[in-house]
Amino acid sequence: MARKLGGSQYQVVLLDKHNYHQFQPLLYQVATSGLEPSSILFPFRKIFQRYKNVHFRMAEVLHVDPTKKCIQTSKGDLTYDHLVIATGASNNFFGNAQIEKRSFPMKSLNESLLLRNSILERFEGALDKDTSSSDPLMTFVIVGGGPTGVELAGTLAEMKRFVLPKDYPELDFDHMKIVLVEGSDRVLSAMHPHSSERALHYLEKLDVEVRLSMRVKDFDGKLVYLSNDETIHSESLIWAAGIKGNFIDGIPEEARGPGNRLRVNAFNQVLGLDDVYAIGDVALMESDLKYPKGHPQMAQVAIQQGRNVAQNFKNRLTGKKLKGFHYRNFGSMATIGRNKAVVELPGRRFAGFFAWLVWMFVHLRSILGVRNKWIVFINWVWNYFTYNLSLRLIIKRKERG
Amino acid sequence: MARKLGGSQYQVVLLDKHNYHQFQPLLYQVATSGLEPSSILFPFRKIFQRYKNVHFRMAEVLHVDPTKKCIQTSKGDLTYDHLVIATGASNNFFGNAQIEKRSFPMKSLNESLLLRNSILERFEGALDKDTSSSDPLMTFVIVGGGPTGVELAGTLAEMKRFVLPKDYPELDFDHMKIVLVEGSDRVLSAMHPHSSERALHYLEKLDVEVRLSMRVKDFDGKLVYLSNDETIHSESLIWAAGIKGNFIDGIPEEARGPGNRLRVNAFNQVLGLDDVYAIGDVALMESDLKYPKGHPQMAQVAIQQGRNVAQNFKNRLTGKKLKGFHYRNFGSMATIGRNKAVVELPGRRFAGFFAWLVWMFVHLRSILGVRNKWIVFINWVWNYFTYNLSLRLIIKRKERG
Repeated sequence: MARKLGGSQYQVVLLDKHNYHQFQPLLYQVATSGLEPSSILFPFRKIFQRYKNVHFRMAEVLHVDPTKKCIQTSKGDLTYDHLVIATGASNNFFGNAQIEKRSFPMKSLNESLLLRNSILERFEGALDKDTSSSDPLMTFVIVGGGPTGVELAGTLAEMKRFVLPKDYPELDFDHMKIVLVEGSDRVLSAMHPHSSERALHYLEKLDVEVRLSMRVKDFDGKLVYLSNDETIHSESLIWAAGIKGNFIDGIPEEARGPGNRLRVNAFNQVLGLDDVYAIGDVALMESDLKYPKGHPQMAQVAIQQGRNVAQNFKNRLTGKKLKGFHYRNFGSMATIGRNKAVVELPGRRFAGFFAWLVWMFVHLRSILGVRNKWIVFINWVWNYFTYNLSLRLIIKRKERG
Repeated sequence: MARKLGGSQYQVVLLDKHNYHQFQPLLYQVATSGLEPSSILFPFRKIFQRYKNVHFRMAEVLHVDPTKKCIQTSKGDLTYDHLVIATGASNNFFGNAQIEKRSFPMKSLNESLLLRNSILERFEGALDKDTSSSDPLMTFVIVGGGPTGVELAGTLAEMKRFVLPKDYPELDFDHMKIVLVEGSDRVLSAMHPHSSERALHYLEKLDVEVRLSMRVKDFDGKLVYLSNDETIHSESLIWAAGIKGNFIDGIPEEARGPGNRLRVNAFNQVLGLDDVYAIGDVALMESDLKYPKGHPQMAQVAIQQGRNVAQNFKNRLTGKKLKGFHYRNFGSMATIGRNKAVVELPGRRFAGFFAWLVWMFVHLRSILGVRNKWIVFINWVWNYFTYNLSLRLIIKRKERG
């Protein structure tokens, strides 16, 4: 939205606690040592160098006062004429503090790097143990059969087959287990049942143990407790099971809808507030006829909403009519290890190698920055032919006190 | 040394607290957003995948007992037949706790990333200040006129000219100041005076303020105190002034030489100990005729010593004579911003654009891994033509408690 308003007559101030945009769909590849963080990050200042009317401030938003039209941030207060909330979503642990404390989510760069370090440390640790005590270190339980969970499971399975045995010849990789736990009766439940079936088939061929209609109840760091009272010995629970909107303090409670999302009308205006908009994962629009319970929380919806709200702001200046939002579904896709993907385009559905090429093309296209596209492309090609990228780094950081 | 013993009849165990090798000469480019960390790191396990006799363990060495031939590590105890200490060097603050606490050194990846974050945060912070209070945020004092200090000063000066004004159009970069403080009467004092003169000339053309025969006495976070009682208003003191050897607990005190280095004989055997060797920055060899006070602490010496000790181990097996170490100086070089470098080869000395090409070639050659070489090369070419790499990322990390 800020880009689309670049060069317009509006003064745009973009606030973020980070100085970079992160391309979330590939965070799982950072977590599995397939990409370096910088390849999927892009500094905001570089995006907006060419627009004089867009200003970036690295600051955390602490509070909004909609009556005074004022935002409190970590760098001071700011008044606004129009406020657009695009705070996205973060992990939803459904109230389970044990899981929140001990599991590995993957919604931010920091979380993905923690997971990367942890996966590698498990194998470093397993080296000094006998088999019975190393098995829980080599067992990974992934919760959530959406694209993130499926793609991560596939990549871990590839690492088990092609990469890790070369790094750890002393370990027996027959003991490495990847379990994918999904609450509904199929993986990729937002896609067509045929795609779910293909994905399940690919996962099983990769030796991933898929547990459908199953939930994870608890995790104590050693044992994963399933809803049928079974337990799995594992020290790694990876959480890709649910998200909730990032609510901002000061927004009236009546605007809060299911999933912590902000109820908006067809123009993305937040319920009961003037000049406050919400777009993307944090917004809940129930007026779009095909999506009465709100849109799926994915990048395509967010991008289209940002564009539409920006266009409406431009229309105001020229006196043109404002346009209510309707989501155009251009398709969805997921990849499962090398060579395999499922793709659904409007009126077309396919799976396999060609789908995988389409998946790569679409994701490369979406990454910000020409250099980043090239680096990601080189990494993918390199990895495809060598099965052996040099990114298995345990980088621990210590910030200053 | 471990690589050279790869495939031999020895069982080699390599211990390191990190799981990667870091290419130190380019850490300053990580600190100035010119390279991503992964480009100059390489995982040990990948290096040694092809050698069955080399084993890597990620562990910190806590203590050595040379009489029992036993090492205590964070992952348990280990006995050895031969111990080789290659612990390198870390920052020497010469006892000044204030400087140690508040300055930014650049000897490790973590330190370089802290500096990268900090440089960018200074400018983010300067945005909200008036000129008088933003100047200390835009003033960088670098202590130490060796290759690290000179290369960093040159790169910062390039950023001031070409990169930062585009990111921060609201700031006045006439107020950005780069001061290089060197204790001796010339920069690059290990090189020929002609090279020092060229380097000084290049730095001054880049608007770096070079203060020779000057030391930094203290730093309180706001003011830098110089040895002539002058002060500089700066919040960023970058420390490239001195190093000391990383001594291991349990090594007898009589082996400790000047600069915390381990005294070794011509075969790199540590004084007074059987079967304990020291190589690289941590070793102090006074028997090499041309270097009676020990060799310069640089990669070339370390690499040649590692090779020589490895060859001597091989010679023992075949009954060949052991060879004392003599350093062969193949030259030294430093770069000062884009297009400029000084190079000294045996019998040849040159400076300027061609020297800069040589500098790049030699450093590319030394980086581990073909993929890393390519990525660094792409970054350099990209930066050369665009002046605008997308790596100005403030990535803060939080490890788990």
